[in-house]
Amino acid sequence: MADEFDSLVAVFRCEVHWGDCDPAGIIFYPTYFRWMDAASWALWASVGYSAKRMKAEQRAMPLVSAECRFIAPALHGDRCEVRSRIARFGGKSFVVAHEVVREDGAALASGSETRVWGRFAGGPGTPLKGEAIPDAVKALFRPG
Amino acid sequence: MADEFDSLVAVFRCEVHWGDCDPAGIIFYPTYFRWMDAASWALWASVGYSAKRMKAEQRAMPLVSAECRFIAPALHGDRCEVRSRIARFGGKSFVVAHEVVREDGAALASGSETRVWGRFAGGPGTPLKGEAIPDAVKALFRPG
Amino acid sequence: MADEFDSLVAVFRCEVHWGDCDPAGIIFYPTYFRWMDAASWALWASVGYSAKRMKAEQRAMPLVSAECRFIAPALHGDRCEVRSRIARFGGKSFVVAHEVVREDGAALASGSETRVWGRFAGGPGTPLKGEAIPDAVKALFRPG
Amino acid sequence: MADEFDSLVAVFRCEVHWGDCDPAGIIFYPTYFRWMDAASWALWASVGYSAKRMKAEQRAMPLVSAECRFIAPALHGDRCEVRSRIARFGGKSFVVAHEVVREDGAALASGSETRVWGRFAGGPGTPLKGEAIPDAVKALFRPG
Repeated sequence: MADEFDSLVAVFRCEVHWGDCDPAGIIFYPTYFRWMDAASWALWASVGYSAKRMKAEQRAMPLVSAECRFIAPALHGDRCEVRSRIARFGGKSFVVAHEVVREDGAALASGSETRVWGRFAGGPGTPLKGEAIPDAVKALFRPG
Repeated sequence: MADEFDSLVAVFRCEVHWGDCDPAGIIFYPTYFRWMDAASWALWASVGYSAKRMKAEQRAMPLVSAECRFIAPALHGDRCEVRSRIARFGGKSFVVAHEVVREDGAALASGSETRVWGRFAGGPGTPLKGEAIPDAVKALFRPG
Repeated sequence: MADEFDSLVAVFRCEVHWGDCDPAGIIFYPTYFRWMDAASWALWASVGYSAKRMKAEQRAMPLVSAECRFIAPALHGDRCEVRSRIARFGGKSFVVAHEVVREDGAALASGSETRVWGRFAGGPGTPLKGEAIPDAVKALFRPG
Repeated sequence: MADEFDSLVAVFRCEVHWGDCDPAGIIFYPTYFRWMDAASWALWASVGYSAKRMKAEQRAMPLVSAECRFIAPALHGDRCEVRSRIARFGGKSFVVAHEVVREDGAALASGSETRVWGRFAGGPGTPLKGEAIPDAVKALFRPG
């Protein structure tokens, strides 16, 4: 996927725990999606949209789609980071690209999520409604 | 734990999936607590408090404590059921006792949860406040 | 994705539990991948490769990639099924296509996994090696 | 639980992610047990038994029981640490006590796990057999 947006990169640190692995002794693959989800929240937090602010403003980022290629197996104890950036901004949606890299530099996985910039119509638990992403918000992701 | 309440027993069916197991090839123990949580919701649903009704009435059942003894290891593919009942009712709280049994009758785990009968002060996401459990509600759990 | 293989369809039943949902009150999306993983094992079990046999033959099905489109939000208490089939067979790999459908027939999600037909080189926990998928195995997935 | 063993304390850092929370907007309680499990592995790693060494020596630490009291609700974005120590050593078993503390010092949860010091009889995936814990191993946990 070619990036259309020149984005800063946020780093989310994580580690492969015992319970993240399956009987093959390697990471259970939905763990990568759990990491990517947390990394997307960390990406937005890095530009000022912390969990606390998102909640106060009744925002969430529901998914349109997600995909991941698994490059090398991760093992219990591996320390990793997820490097996340905005790959594309649409009107109400955006694509986050994620690279999962082990501390020795080995690429483990490469994925992306397409999300909507949403707000709860009537508080948490009520339906989410997409909102146009203001240019000022997009600009927050321009590298330093 | 001796039961102080004569309760009906609800059955929650479940199965040990590949991703529920760890590199030792047996169930990762927090899976039992996930099952127990779902089984408590199923117990309440069995007396008329479905997920839908709980949401409409803005109720939840926050935990005070939880414990489990692990009797025999569960393996990938094992079909199980969680047999759940009210062990005790307090004023605003209650104890659910759970037995996890494999389809061949083998006991796998035995646990309990102490929960509060709570309601959101101002909609989902706002703090939960305990409420007195009416006698009419307690009576729903008497065996047929 | 156009199917290239005329496959039977296996059904995996599941339900959205309280802990499968996030603060938006809808399913946390990695749950769909957990379901798809379990559904792939169920698909193979449906043609004779049960969890028990897979373990005895030291087989596993490591992932090459996975993707999912999220069509409608699933809520706590929703009963669903995952309908899974082989979309494509390669030499040592295969693609499983999954449709997640709510009990009222609503499509919730549509995804796929690309997997390798693998065997542990030296027992569980040792590296997995891809093996050619015999025609006799592929034939098991032909509809009745 | 009164400690019978004078143990060092290991610190495991963690954070409450979006997907760790439920529709009540607070942490889904099995998350605490996932953290406690990872914290026990970190405790052993802190005295030289890393994930890598445990695997090489074919060791694991199956559970006898686990329990937790939930003191205050954790919210999305809360940074926490789990402070873990050996509360008791038996012949082949041990008790790990865990305190979960938010970065502002608030106690969130307090739990313990009883585990067996085990070794796979015939490699990963084969049954685990308890072994006597040598005094030299116990001594590793004495505070500096």
